[in-house]
Amino acid sequence: MAQTVNAAVERAAAAGVAWRATPASERALVLERVADALLEHAGELWPAADAETHLGEVRLRGEIARTASQFRLFAGVLRDGGHVEAVIDHADPRATPPRPDVRRMNHPIGVVAVFSASNFPFAFSVAGGDTVSALAAGCPVVVKAHEGHPRTSDLTAAVVRQALPDPDLLGLVHGFDAGAPLVRHPLVTAVGFTGSQAGGRAVQALINDRPDPIPFYGELGSVNPVVVLPSADPSAVASGFAASLTLGVGQFCTNPGLVFVPEGSGFEQAIGAAVAATTGGVMLTAKIRDGYLHGVERLAKRAGPGTGVAVLASGGPGAGQDAVTPRVFAADLEAFADGLPELAEECFGPAAIIVKYQDSSDLPAVLRRLPGSLTATVHAADPEEARGIVPVLQRLAGRLIWNGWPTGVAVCWAMHHGGPWPASTTPAHTSVGAASIRRWLAPVAYQDWPPGLLPCELRDGNPLGVPQRVDGRPRA
Amino acid sequence: MAQTVNAAVERAAAAGVAWRATPASERALVLERVADALLEHAGELWPAADAETHLGEVRLRGEIARTASQFRLFAGVLRDGGHVEAVIDHADPRATPPRPDVRRMNHPIGVVAVFSASNFPFAFSVAGGDTVSALAAGCPVVVKAHEGHPRTSDLTAAVVRQALPDPDLLGLVHGFDAGAPLVRHPLVTAVGFTGSQAGGRAVQALINDRPDPIPFYGELGSVNPVVVLPSADPSAVASGFAASLTLGVGQFCTNPGLVFVPEGSGFEQAIGAAVAATTGGVMLTAKIRDGYLHGVERLAKRAGPGTGVAVLASGGPGAGQDAVTPRVFAADLEAFADGLPELAEECFGPAAIIVKYQDSSDLPAVLRRLPGSLTATVHAADPEEARGIVPVLQRLAGRLIWNGWPTGVAVCWAMHHGGPWPASTTPAHTSVGAASIRRWLAPVAYQDWPPGLLPCELRDGNPLGVPQRVDGRPRA
Repeated sequence: MAQTVNAAVERAAAAGVAWRATPASERALVLERVADALLEHAGELWPAADAETHLGEVRLRGEIARTASQFRLFAGVLRDGGHVEAVIDHADPRATPPRPDVRRMNHPIGVVAVFSASNFPFAFSVAGGDTVSALAAGCPVVVKAHEGHPRTSDLTAAVVRQALPDPDLLGLVHGFDAGAPLVRHPLVTAVGFTGSQAGGRAVQALINDRPDPIPFYGELGSVNPVVVLPSADPSAVASGFAASLTLGVGQFCTNPGLVFVPEGSGFEQAIGAAVAATTGGVMLTAKIRDGYLHGVERLAKRAGPGTGVAVLASGGPGAGQDAVTPRVFAADLEAFADGLPELAEECFGPAAIIVKYQDSSDLPAVLRRLPGSLTATVHAADPEEARGIVPVLQRLAGRLIWNGWPTGVAVCWAMHHGGPWPASTTPAHTSVGAASIRRWLAPVAYQDWPPGLLPCELRDGNPLGVPQRVDGRPRA
Repeated sequence: MAQTVNAAVERAAAAGVAWRATPASERALVLERVADALLEHAGELWPAADAETHLGEVRLRGEIARTASQFRLFAGVLRDGGHVEAVIDHADPRATPPRPDVRRMNHPIGVVAVFSASNFPFAFSVAGGDTVSALAAGCPVVVKAHEGHPRTSDLTAAVVRQALPDPDLLGLVHGFDAGAPLVRHPLVTAVGFTGSQAGGRAVQALINDRPDPIPFYGELGSVNPVVVLPSADPSAVASGFAASLTLGVGQFCTNPGLVFVPEGSGFEQAIGAAVAATTGGVMLTAKIRDGYLHGVERLAKRAGPGTGVAVLASGGPGAGQDAVTPRVFAADLEAFADGLPELAEECFGPAAIIVKYQDSSDLPAVLRRLPGSLTATVHAADPEEARGIVPVLQRLAGRLIWNGWPTGVAVCWAMHHGGPWPASTTPAHTSVGAASIRRWLAPVAYQDWPPGLLPCELRDGNPLGVPQRVDGRPRA
């Protein structure tokens, strides 16, 4: 296994030499060719993924389209050039001490290792957000395929490789045992990971043992609290929640796992009825299903008379052998607070706790005790009702949503998909959207450097027309 | 000790609530008041620091001025507003799926723990770069004072605190034992550190044991290679090198510890003569002096007939009890390569190895094996001579210097003070210059958020006039 991994990393590093020297405008063309290739082969890709994930044609074709659109977004990012963050400070001989000419821009860091996710066989897998942002940055990639969809991974890699100038820019290794030698490899310069907290801590431990610890960009889970304020509409909240909870059998990192509702205003009943009308489905793998059943059982054991926790509703089992059912619990705010941090642990799948509060002024103290999340959502008809909790939510989650639902992550310039641990190991960085390229870039400053040796992005006159900050002022 | 640390962190967190809500323009005024206060008290500060560090009035007054100018730079950063990285993507109902309105900006992360450095009692200490960038970001700070200058730390903290709107925004704790409870404290959200590799690994281990591992921004050492190419002028190189090597008794993270010179072109002799004319001095602490003597002894033991390593020159001892002398060794390129990685270990102080090469085309293979550095320097009259090694240097160091010397780090917008490990634990981030504020910020995205609850920086019409990227296009 170590030999296979070693060969993939060494081939990627060799292919990366030309790729990092390829102008951004040419890398953009390559990314667009990959997008075209993914769409051209959608008819072969989705059935392979459906056989391995049970996610169905509509969702999988949609995910392939999203994956292709991520490649197109990064083609646009490269043409814009803002990702290099060009900064020019001309010399100032009058300063004390005299200031030299200093110019800075970002460069690709080197081979990136990507651990793909179970729940997005395309968008967070071999050709997913980590891979496309790393390729866009100028970095070669070696992906560890998820064990849940090995054939889809192979097919996707083949499609991407034929559109790359050098197929070795995308390596693919299989199997749990491939992870450690990949993280340890001296030529690997950063790791992207989507998975569990335990898996993330294991990767971090491997990195710490390296002679040169490298950056680790992990997304390790999220409970995505939803705060429903009294002015919200119970029926709209209930139907929207039930749909978001059960989308993709609840297998989203942005699945809403905690909902705070005003007690005695009809929200609990409406949500119970809406969830009872849902149906479950077959989960991605037997391991994920077992994890879900274990999590639900853990919550069920806490429920009962006098505990402040109760079973609220269950959905129907849905089609398919081993299908799971959506499960929703209800808890008083005090009982929920007493049960922290355990009650705020993510239960991956269509399960949630509805937490009933009597006074919304009691919410901030409890919200402050929640673990970091990718998202936090507010439902209210009156924005003023939410003003008091906004400062708490800003420190709790990376994305705040108004009168919507967290499932569904727009791939755009402004998106932030991250948050305090365990939502992200690096809260300053996002794993979705244009800014995710920054994970695979590192700045280099050039001091009194000869103009002829400067990268084009840092030359006077700005021949490539990239956004620059010159002598302290931004120039679009 | 844990109680003292706990109290400092809790007071800082409480003071931070109002500080993070303070408009950037008002924070800028506060930073300028701190700058004024530091300069006003320079006459008390420098003698305290001189008594503890032996660095002398000229250097220390200069360092206080630099420290004040760092506060002024960040006042300018706050007035510019680019640090919040405002991005607005308006809703696109025609997109598939329809895209919501998404807006993103950076917010302060919370209490920052700072481990101050031995070698800059002002500029990398209580009121140093980590502290000012964190305060500018809107974060309160708790500093662990360096054991080498406790009284200077107390005096500096008092000066800064009287200029802050709430003195608790800057906490100060003393002693080695304060480090662990500070890093473990649940309210601490990030750690800045300047020190040794062993110290940095110890802090990282403490962070990994937290229930919620937090970001670690460490600067852990650097050998700062200098590549002298055949067209350079031996006498200019020799005099510049000797001055840079011995500045501040060599106690700079940017001290030039490795110099590659063409064999037989007079560089070795010129450097030997220049170093022989230097004088040493008293180092910061007995521990640092012992470390230097140990490092020099380690190199001396490798020297001798047939080893390819020789003692090249020593300076004079300089004034003061326990003063150390500059020491320079010479090595053949092959012997140096054989001695890696040990021969590239930093020896903190005025020591260096002059590595003699016969053919500059042999350099890239050796340079690729060096550990990451804060800087890499090239000396040449003809830029074309350097073209082949630039791609290697871009991956070796965070700042590339032409015909200059690495000691002296300009505090400006374009500066990057970082590099691959061990120069930095986070190669995407800098600890000097305007971009260092990014370490203490985390993005929050707002989806379909009510305009009245949006931060001013993200509102349509841009009432604060900050740089924004709107619908994919930068607007200065």
